[in-house]
Amino acid sequence: MNRIAFWLAAVATVAGVVAFTAPASLHADDEAAPVFGIKIPPGFRDWKLISVAHEAGGLNDLRAVLGNDAAIKAYREGKLPFPDGAIIARLAWSYVPSEENNKVFGREQSFVAGSPTNVQFMVKDSSKYASTGGWGFAQFKDGKPNADAATLKTCFPCHVPVKARDYVFTRYAPNP
Amino acid sequence: MNRIAFWLAAVATVAGVVAFTAPASLHADDEAAPVFGIKIPPGFRDWKLISVAHEAGGLNDLRAVLGNDAAIKAYREGKLPFPDGAIIARLAWSYVPSEENNKVFGREQSFVAGSPTNVQFMVKDSSKYASTGGWGFAQFKDGKPNADAATLKTCFPCHVPVKARDYVFTRYAPNP
Repeated sequence: MNRIAFWLAAVATVAGVVAFTAPASLHADDEAAPVFGIKIPPGFRDWKLISVAHEAGGLNDLRAVLGNDAAIKAYREGKLPFPDGAIIARLAWSYVPSEENNKVFGREQSFVAGSPTNVQFMVKDSSKYASTGGWGFAQFKDGKPNADAATLKTCFPCHVPVKARDYVFTRYAPNP
Repeated sequence: MNRIAFWLAAVATVAGVVAFTAPASLHADDEAAPVFGIKIPPGFRDWKLISVAHEAGGLNDLRAVLGNDAAIKAYREGKLPFPDGAIIARLAWSYVPSEENNKVFGREQSFVAGSPTNVQFMVKDSSKYASTGGWGFAQFKDGKPNADAATLKTCFPCHVPVKARDYVFTRYAPNP
């Protein structure tokens, strides 16, 4: 299993070992994830859409990539690098067929978001995270951080191939 | 081709025949789509995420479903029927492999949003659209409405199987 696959899958095997309190929707008081010290950004589910994707293979998920206002502004203006304060969120759910939809379509073609997998964040702080391209990385599931420091340290090396886009894989999906 | 597939694919063959003026991001002045008289809701790309999906087969797209504040509130509170003023947007893009991502993963597994396909709206107005479950339907591409009235009339019958959820297929994807 390569680094990205390992990192993305690791949450399934890492037990949350820290105490936390989780407001129903914001998770603002959650314990910080290790290495980069990132907490779940309040209200991330209200952020604007950057794009969508499907990772097949072992991950087998559907994902939405959202951005806070600073990230969205940079994307829409095509400005790189992203400014300090920009945060990108990747939400993922299991990739499941929809029997309900398929009945209406009359064939097996519809795949929808199943159970939640995890949410990852890239947080831009060019000073604090200078050694990792200005980005800090974190992953949470049900409000609990992935506490495996070794796993989190694999994030940045995987993003290096897209250094020219300020280490961000996801491109902004144009309006239909 | 069944009704949904026909409707969703029809935009590819229907030429926009109406004049319109399109602000860069909002399309607020676009000509209304026929049958239900719906214009593109200003700022729909800023709406909050409901869920994501992949339609394989002939559609072969990745899609995001967004909601305006009234729709999101109803979803999050689990309240049906949706209130008047609720609008649900389905944005779709072609489903394309990402060679860039696959190189990093080390295998063919990553599919991302390619070129935009179209955007569809369901607009709740229980008086105006009383004969179609309280919903009006429209489809646009590049700011131009799908002007095929016959196609738009197939929308509601397709949604009847989910009458119990106020004619809305997409379920709210829980936070990861």
